[in-house]
This record gives sequence, C-alpha cells and structure tokens, in this order.
Amino acid sequence: MSKTLQKKAASTSQSRLSQAVTPQSDVAHFGDDNPLVLDNGERLGSHTIAYQTYGTLNDDKSNVILVCHALTGDQHVASDNPVTGKSGWWTRMVGPGKPVDTDRFYVICVNVIGGCMGTTGPASQNPETGKPYGLEFPVITIGDMVRAQAQLLDHLGIASLFCVIGGSMGGMQVLEWAARYKERVFAAIPIACSARHTSQNIAFHEVGRQAVMADPDWCGGRYLEKGKNPHKGLAVARMAGHITYLSDEALQQKFGRNLQNRDAVTFGFDADFQVESYLRHQGMTFVERFDANSYLYMTRAMDYFDMAADHNGSLAEAFRDTETRFCVVSFTSDWLFPTEESRDIVQALNAVAANVSFVEIVSDKGHDAFLLDEPELNETISGFLGAAALKRGLVANRDGQA
Amino acid sequence: MSKTLQKKAASTSQSRLSQAVTPQSDVAHFGDDNPLVLDNGERLGSHTIAYQTYGTLNDDKSNVILVCHALTGDQHVASDNPVTGKSGWWTRMVGPGKPVDTDRFYVICVNVIGGCMGTTGPASQNPETGKPYGLEFPVITIGDMVRAQAQLLDHLGIASLFCVIGGSMGGMQVLEWAARYKERVFAAIPIACSARHTSQNIAFHEVGRQAVMADPDWCGGRYLEKGKNPHKGLAVARMAGHITYLSDEALQQKFGRNLQNRDAVTFGFDADFQVESYLRHQGMTFVERFDANSYLYMTRAMDYFDMAADHNGSLAEAFRDTETRFCVVSFTSDWLFPTEESRDIVQALNAVAANVSFVEIVSDKGHDAFLLDEPELNETISGFLGAAALKRGLVANRDGQA
Repeated sequence: MSKTLQKKAASTSQSRLSQAVTPQSDVAHFGDDNPLVLDNGERLGSHTIAYQTYGTLNDDKSNVILVCHALTGDQHVASDNPVTGKSGWWTRMVGPGKPVDTDRFYVICVNVIGGCMGTTGPASQNPETGKPYGLEFPVITIGDMVRAQAQLLDHLGIASLFCVIGGSMGGMQVLEWAARYKERVFAAIPIACSARHTSQNIAFHEVGRQAVMADPDWCGGRYLEKGKNPHKGLAVARMAGHITYLSDEALQQKFGRNLQNRDAVTFGFDADFQVESYLRHQGMTFVERFDANSYLYMTRAMDYFDMAADHNGSLAEAFRDTETRFCVVSFTSDWLFPTEESRDIVQALNAVAANVSFVEIVSDKGHDAFLLDEPELNETISGFLGAAALKRGLVANRDGQA
Repeated sequence: MSKTLQKKAASTSQSRLSQAVTPQSDVAHFGDDNPLVLDNGERLGSHTIAYQTYGTLNDDKSNVILVCHALTGDQHVASDNPVTGKSGWWTRMVGPGKPVDTDRFYVICVNVIGGCMGTTGPASQNPETGKPYGLEFPVITIGDMVRAQAQLLDHLGIASLFCVIGGSMGGMQVLEWAARYKERVFAAIPIACSARHTSQNIAFHEVGRQAVMADPDWCGGRYLEKGKNPHKGLAVARMAGHITYLSDEALQQKFGRNLQNRDAVTFGFDADFQVESYLRHQGMTFVERFDANSYLYMTRAMDYFDMAADHNGSLAEAFRDTETRFCVVSFTSDWLFPTEESRDIVQALNAVAANVSFVEIVSDKGHDAFLLDEPELNETISGFLGAAALKRGLVANRDGQA
C-alpha cells in the first residue's frame, strides 16, 4: 500500500471507531428502565439507536417509509457516509424524485442493533465492565433488530409505517416486521431475500467467521482493548462474501480472465488477474469501515433467521390475517437468495390470501442487483409505492403524480 | 479436540511430512541431465516423480490408462492412502471389475509436479539451498504437470496411452494431454472440468490463497523451516473450497438447518448447525494431510489454465487433427464447472471433426459428483472404455466382456 493510501486507511479506521461511539447521526438513548428484551432471553439495558431521516413527516405521520439495511450497510442510505466520505448506499433508490421519493415520504433508516455505526453493538462500551462488549454482547436476531426499530418508532411517536423496504438482510427485517407488527405495516417490499437461511448460506457465513477468528489479532474478540484489528481475517471474510453477491456471469463480463496492468501472467502469487485485484481491494476497503465483531453478529443473526420454525413449521402462519400489501422482488441471477426462496414467501402469502405481487427481475448482476442500476427495480418500487399511496390516501407529490 | 484426536492429527501430520520426502510409492528420480522444462521458462533439474500402478502391463504396452488427480488428490487412487490410512480416492471407479478395470487395464496415477505426496514440490528440498523450496519453487502449470507425466512414461518405456481420464483439475490434465501429445492418446475422458478457469473460479481460489497467506504461521512460505504450519488459514481455504464442490441442493438435503447435537441454537458462535460442524471437520482433516504451499501452487496452476489462449484464442485449434476418441462428462448441479464449460469443449472438438461423445449426468451432488456414487457415471465410463478397447484391439477381460 502506498503511504497516501495507508494514511487514508488509518484515517478511515479512526473515523470508523469514532462513529461507533459518537455517530454523526440522530441518536436515541434508552436507559435501563427501557431495556430491549432480546430473543435469547436477555435484556439489553442502557442502549443507543442511531438513525437517519430524509424528507418531511406529514401531519398524521402516515408517510413513513422504513428502509432496512443489509449485512454491511448502515443508516446512511441517501446521504454521505461519514466514515468513507462516499455517497449513501441507496441513493439510486432514495431521494427527491427517486422511487422512494423523499419529497413525498419521510424515510427513516436505522443502524441495526449489533451494528457499528452508532447503535449499540459489540464495539460499544459494556456498562458493567467499562470496556467494549466484544463477545459479551448478546447474540442478536433479525427479530431483535426489528424490535429495536419499533422501540425507536415508539420513541419518535410513529405508530405505523406506510412501508418497510429492504434487500438481503434488510429484506429479512421487512418480513419480520410484517409478521411481528402486522397492524403497523401498510406495505412491505422484501427484496432479494429469504424467510430462512439455507445450509449453503450458513456455510459461507461460517467460512467468514472462521476467517476472522483465525486471525490472531482478533484476540478472542478483545482486539479493541488491545489496540489491534483483525483486518486480514476480516478481509478474507469479505472477499468470500463478495463472490456470493455477484453472479458468475457478472464476474465473467466485468473481469473475465483479464490481467491487471500487465501483458502476461507473472508465474507468481501477485494479483495477476483483475478479479484478484478487485477482491483484494474489496477486502481492504471493507476492513477500514466495518467492525469485525459486528460482522460475526450480523452473519449469525442471518443464520438464525427461520420464520417458519418460529411459527410451528409453517411460513404461512407467520402472515395469517395480514392486511399488509406485499411486493416481493427477486433477481434471476441471484444465487445467494435464488428466486425459489422468494417464491416460497409468495406461496406462503398466497396461502393466507394476502395481497401480494411478485416480480422476478431478469438481471445478470446477481444478489447485489438491488444496489445497482436496475431500471426495472426502480419502476417496480415506484409503481408499487404510488399505488399503495393512493390506497393509503396519501396526497400526490409536488409533481402531481400519484 | 480430544487428546486422542490430537494424537491422531499429530501422527497424520508427521506422516504427511514424511510422504513428501520419502513416499510409500513407486518413485522415478530424474537428475540435472534430465530436467523438466517448465512453461515459465525455468528448468527444474534434479526432481522426483512419485506414482502408483494397478493391474498388469500387457506385452505391447497398449493397455495403459493414466488417471489424473484433482487439486487435493494424489497418486493413491485405488489403494490405501499412507497418510490418512483411508481407501484410495477413486476406488468406486478403479479396481478389479470396476469401470476402469485393473483386471484388464494397467492403471498409472502420478502425483502432480508441485504436489506434496512424493513428487517434487514446494515442500521438497531445494538442492541449491538445502532447505525446502517454499516459494522458491517455480510456479507450475497444468502443462507442466502433463509434461512431467510424459517424462515418467518415457522413463517407463510407455509410448502411448490407451486412455487418460480425470475429473476437475484432473480433467484439465486430460485436455492438455489430448492437445499436447495427440499421437500418444487413444482415448480421453475429461470429467467435470473446463478448458479455462473463469473469473469466479479464480476468485474462489484467490480467497483460499489469501486465507493461507494471512496466517502468520505461513511465515512467507517458510513454515517448514520454522516448524510451523498455517493450519488455520489452510482450513479456512478448504472450507471455502469445499462449499464450491457441493451443490446448494446437496447441502440442503444433507444438512438443511439441522442442529449439531443440540435441541436449540445456543445464541453463540459454536457450530450450532451441522453444516458448520461438517465444514470445520473438512478443514481440520485437510490440513493434516495437505501442504499449504502445494495448495497455493495447485490453485495457481488451475487459474492459469486457458487452452484457447494458448492457441491464438481458438479452443478448436488445440485439438486440430486429433484422432483421439473423447468422452466429455458433466453434472447438472456442478456450479464450479457448469455443463456450459463442457459444452464449449464439445463444440471445439466438433469444430475439428473429432470423435466425441458428451454425457451430461443429472445429479444433485454438485462438482464432487465424480467422486461419489453416481451409477450413470460408472456406466458411461465402462461403456466408453469397452467400446474404445474393441477399437484398439484390446482383448476382453477375464469375464469375456468386450
């Protein structure tokens, strides 16, 4: 790494640590008198929830859209990320005049519990010890993430959501919202997700966790106290994960067997191929902005997700008597959460006569398609939200569109 | 790990180190006067090739079948492995009365150059330094593996092969044999392979290499001299690789979300799920039997494989004027080397009017199907070899079958 890059990385890492404790976000503090009761039975006393909002809350608070972020996402959905300095992760989708139109809707995005961008997580101080939680932080679930979001909404005096939307782990939260708080969700858009993690999903996550834990700088989870960072292990985890976010076709089209700044292979172990260089870069930039323990907790929460198991083996039961309007979205080339998984959700919704539309988008971009330029996704969400807003009696936006 | 298991692991590791230097196999030594000229331009002087044979060589030496092993395989194809004590890796396929019938054919399997079971590789002593080669070993290619095998056959006085067969990296060697030594190969059976590594293939290998190199016990490749073994990194590499060898369906059927010896999740990072326990076991047993540097070299050789690039961008050119009879085999659920890759090989062979049959076997077992119980694979190979033997004028086996 060049000196300039090293300096930038160090400054990003510093910024990451500071965001975990004193985030540049709105923050709600909850005391011991307002604990979060977790699925594992524990009570998380004093805790903090960091979030961002965009747009204006209308008078009857009926225009709220909750955006749920994915595994390594955060609350900075449509504004610059204070750690990386880059644009928010879903500016294609959320903003003035965008499908999730902040001229019309009041958008909230919450850093999930267990995260590392200001909401309490393993990098936060454990009040009982005065040291970072590390692995003393309780293992949380998708249900706990959603419960924390509901607690924040209560705190903000927002009784119901016009819509809850998210992709991947965000989609899991959408499903959990729709199942757990039926009366609070008018519309739901789960994208590129699943109602349970498969064996292969768990397997890839386990590889990532073992890569982190194999790094001696992980120090049994106590790296913050020791001034270390298991960046090599976390980078390997990210590299493995990143492959699963892209389709075989996308990798082949983008990189193929192209060489990186050279005319011939070097007969060595440098990054001869562009795809190697790309993956190494993904690994390196990720470790600057993300906490290794949070990565363990987020992946575990996804592994534990199994909505049918939580409802006597019947996914349909999770949604019985729902009046939420669903728009389920999948992508043809997503092999991490294949269309079949979305179809299972749709079938369960159909089995309880829910109002559901299902769109399988033809895309070669793989799982990450929901974050990328996919005009059909924008049209789908824009159309669904417009129609749902009409039903909800929300006034048209400034352009007079429904 | 229990004490018994630790003892066993230590003894297996010891056995691995001893097999790399003094293998329980037939061995051919080549001196500086008989170097192996490598694709990278270097000459590997004094070197050793370890191999196993099964069956009896007939008088005109026309009944030889060369079996090429895969990434982590070795020469012990049909007899007990001296490191693990387990059966050979392809006893389903090779042996008396098996599809590759050792009552009829003389089977040779060679530990590839760069390997760790007695053929010269990075764990071997570098005569120039008196220390293990480590990363001073030249980066080898699939072509180099095949050249070493040809050198051994010359040494044994075997001019031509009745058949060359192998799966995965073994299949790559089969293709290379058929292209490089057309006149020496009567029949060829490339299974579950490809004529070039894709971007995704390279990506997964790069993750594995980075996992090994991230382990401080790798010591820049000098772990043998330092009495260390980067077993944690290599285990992570193996875990990631292993997922790619199995299909999503196979994992789901075999493990699903079943818990490992418990009734409920533990809300922790133990191997709650069977698939986690299975992967960890795969990682642990692999590091006992395989050399970390060899893993780097084998994966690199596969990454570099691109037959079309070696023939002015035309895969068909690689096979022009071939008189070899080909049987190309793929498996429907193999996502590491999908059927499409085999189809490309078949199309190239068709373009030069080669004699080729193509069998896509319906299987849910993924890439590893070629090593597992797949009756259709056995029938395919048995039938193809029988017919080819007739054409070659080989006498029937003891049962009188053609």
